[in-house]
Amino acid sequence: MAIVGASANEPVRGWLARQLLFGYEGTLYPVNPRAAEVNGLKAYPTVRDIPGPVDYAIFNIPARFVPQALEDCAYKRVKLVHLYTAGFSETGKEEGKKLEARVAAIAREGGIRLIGPNCLGLYYPNQGITFNAGFAREPGNLALLSQSGSAANRFISLANQRQVYFSKGISFGNAIDLEAADYMEYFAQDPETEIIACYLEGMRDGKRFLNAVRQCMVSKPVIIMKAGLTEGGAGAAASHTASLGGSRAVWEALFNQTGVIRSGSLEEMVDISLAWLFLKRPLGRRVGVVGRGGGIGVIATDTCELAGLKVPAFLPGTRQQFESIIPEVGAGTRNPVESDRGIAGMAEFFAKGLPIVDADPNIDFIMVHISVDIYGGRQASIEQEVVKAADSLVVTSQSLRKPVVVVLYPGERLEPIAAVLKARERLVAAKIPVFNTIQAAAVAVSKLIGYRERRSCA
Amino acid sequence: MAIVGASANEPVRGWLARQLLFGYEGTLYPVNPRAAEVNGLKAYPTVRDIPGPVDYAIFNIPARFVPQALEDCAYKRVKLVHLYTAGFSETGKEEGKKLEARVAAIAREGGIRLIGPNCLGLYYPNQGITFNAGFAREPGNLALLSQSGSAANRFISLANQRQVYFSKGISFGNAIDLEAADYMEYFAQDPETEIIACYLEGMRDGKRFLNAVRQCMVSKPVIIMKAGLTEGGAGAAASHTASLGGSRAVWEALFNQTGVIRSGSLEEMVDISLAWLFLKRPLGRRVGVVGRGGGIGVIATDTCELAGLKVPAFLPGTRQQFESIIPEVGAGTRNPVESDRGIAGMAEFFAKGLPIVDADPNIDFIMVHISVDIYGGRQASIEQEVVKAADSLVVTSQSLRKPVVVVLYPGERLEPIAAVLKARERLVAAKIPVFNTIQAAAVAVSKLIGYRERRSCA
Repeated sequence: MAIVGASANEPVRGWLARQLLFGYEGTLYPVNPRAAEVNGLKAYPTVRDIPGPVDYAIFNIPARFVPQALEDCAYKRVKLVHLYTAGFSETGKEEGKKLEARVAAIAREGGIRLIGPNCLGLYYPNQGITFNAGFAREPGNLALLSQSGSAANRFISLANQRQVYFSKGISFGNAIDLEAADYMEYFAQDPETEIIACYLEGMRDGKRFLNAVRQCMVSKPVIIMKAGLTEGGAGAAASHTASLGGSRAVWEALFNQTGVIRSGSLEEMVDISLAWLFLKRPLGRRVGVVGRGGGIGVIATDTCELAGLKVPAFLPGTRQQFESIIPEVGAGTRNPVESDRGIAGMAEFFAKGLPIVDADPNIDFIMVHISVDIYGGRQASIEQEVVKAADSLVVTSQSLRKPVVVVLYPGERLEPIAAVLKARERLVAAKIPVFNTIQAAAVAVSKLIGYRERRSCA
Repeated sequence: MAIVGASANEPVRGWLARQLLFGYEGTLYPVNPRAAEVNGLKAYPTVRDIPGPVDYAIFNIPARFVPQALEDCAYKRVKLVHLYTAGFSETGKEEGKKLEARVAAIAREGGIRLIGPNCLGLYYPNQGITFNAGFAREPGNLALLSQSGSAANRFISLANQRQVYFSKGISFGNAIDLEAADYMEYFAQDPETEIIACYLEGMRDGKRFLNAVRQCMVSKPVIIMKAGLTEGGAGAAASHTASLGGSRAVWEALFNQTGVIRSGSLEEMVDISLAWLFLKRPLGRRVGVVGRGGGIGVIATDTCELAGLKVPAFLPGTRQQFESIIPEVGAGTRNPVESDRGIAGMAEFFAKGLPIVDADPNIDFIMVHISVDIYGGRQASIEQEVVKAADSLVVTSQSLRKPVVVVLYPGERLEPIAAVLKARERLVAAKIPVFNTIQAAAVAVSKLIGYRERRSCA
């Protein structure tokens, strides 16, 4: 890998530093005509001067130097170049558009494929390639296709925090050569990828993209967040990645014809990916809700039903069993069922209560919610108590026939937030999906179920 | 104040302990037939045995003891009793309904008004009365009217964290005497209250409530979250506070006829309250968005416009000025405008950039967003840098004619979250409203504007 424009001034945050920190195992060649070495590696004035073969180059140089550097790459038979460089058609200026066309022509003639320009390029943890050294090195099965670098940074970082790991992530910007359809075709046949999340502003070849999405969906779900659908958003997208977003109607048609999972935010795409990766068994829409707080339970019920789930009343036998283990007067047992205990008693309540819900034939899956925000600060050891409750959920859920999803509501104070992060780690490591809000959980699970329903009808 | 059922076993978390911890300044009388003292205060076997006058009593006793204790209160001419006790009509059982009717009759005959039963009662920081000792002691101008205790706990706690303080908060449960309409009538004439947020499951006297809302809205905005609107939610509400929720159509009519601000979640009610309390000047819908990250900016634009705001292109002169201060190639200047700097350069960018947006006549207010999640962890001193940026916003915004709202996106890692909490404190103390997401900010501001538009037409 060559880093063209490897900067000696960025020993920690530069493109070369990132690969070194992340642990790229291949050979790295800094290219810089004004340095003898960068980050302790011998630097070369141009790509032509590199002694060994070069497969891949990242360009971190001003736009005007790109044509010459690309010709050097063609000479060295470099297969793929990532243009981090901006200043092309997205500027809206004639000069930028002309330069972009020239760059595309040089690449085409030289047999080079291009990622970008104006993008962060490739995150491939299995090979130690990244655009952010803070990302997880652990590989996984989620692929990200993102036209935007900042959206990719946020999405990958949020997903990593939930222990959701990636096959590949790609930020592809203006897409003057490889574009959305190419990447989608790649992911369709990539054995490392099981599910694909997309942040898209626009594309050139809608028909080929549509076919590639269909090809993917033979075996892999596709989630798409389309940005730039409003008037202002379309204008912002044009000046961001020079994207012609396409009309709302065209996108509606794509969503309807393919049955892809449509998402309204990056956070929601993370939630849906988590649900898909963690809830492998078929699911019905009838949820048994377990938690504490009558009003929070009513809100939970509305939220679930508005998202397309059902919260049916438990069978009388189920309610009776709960009444026998809940001495508290006034605690609800209809569904949601209310734990009568504070956070300290949750572990015991889950051990006794979840099997009761599991046995109710009108319920397809269980949602447990803990209002960590409310408990936090009233006990000395909120973290300890929440982790204890989480451990009980891990053990108890192993003996259940029905899947369990967990909501740990962190609130806005640091202590309960820290407790949530700790407890979440334990749950997610045991393959129990954890969400921040009942809304997030309900929407993610409902969209997952909807996708499966559409597929089984197709 | 008498605490009937003051428990010697709850020295920290009991009802008496809460008032002591919170700093109630009146006289507290524990009532407990089996204790000589509770929390260091002399206890009395019944309310009748208390030597001095009693204005207010909190009942924390089993339902079956409530009639006798209420008769004792009638004897002592207690004006108001809060029944924390549950086990009445919300159980759905004949026995509970009968007992509730008897309790209501005793109160009526004895000239006692009742809060509850089955609720957390009163939070009145100005007098040191509370149901949660963790709440802010500082008084403010927001009133909360909540049928649910857990919803009240969450709402007040979230608001306090944003430096939004309360005149009174009330959790009123089954409402067998005082009900939503009574509290609303009270808030209408309460000089300490400037804005009212409501979590409601149902009510008895819809017509009187409607009139009380109208009376409030002569001078104070009313925000309502109606829970139990779905089929499952209505069932859950019935078993929670014995509420007959009323049909969706009736509530739609109430929302349409009064023009109240309608909210879908507790979090959104906090955001709207914050916007109202902090953005006193009239506002138009055209927002200038300032931040970093092209994709995040496109998403911000869509999000704002979907929420009902407009993100128009800046005037050419505005864009030219930005181009002269942003050397980075490819940074957007259309609106959103992208800072070309990492978090370390934000302070300087805001000082230079916000006056440029302020001068654009097509813009009504400014939204600054900082993706603290993305920056976090790449610098040693993320907290220091974010606070520096916040301080710059405080200073810069003082010289602007247009209001500034700030979004600090915390993400999911503890370090940036801690930085956000710190920086938020500084901004909110300077009366700049801060939101967690662009979505939350856009929806809150748009609902505020919508309310004002409806009022000016009325």
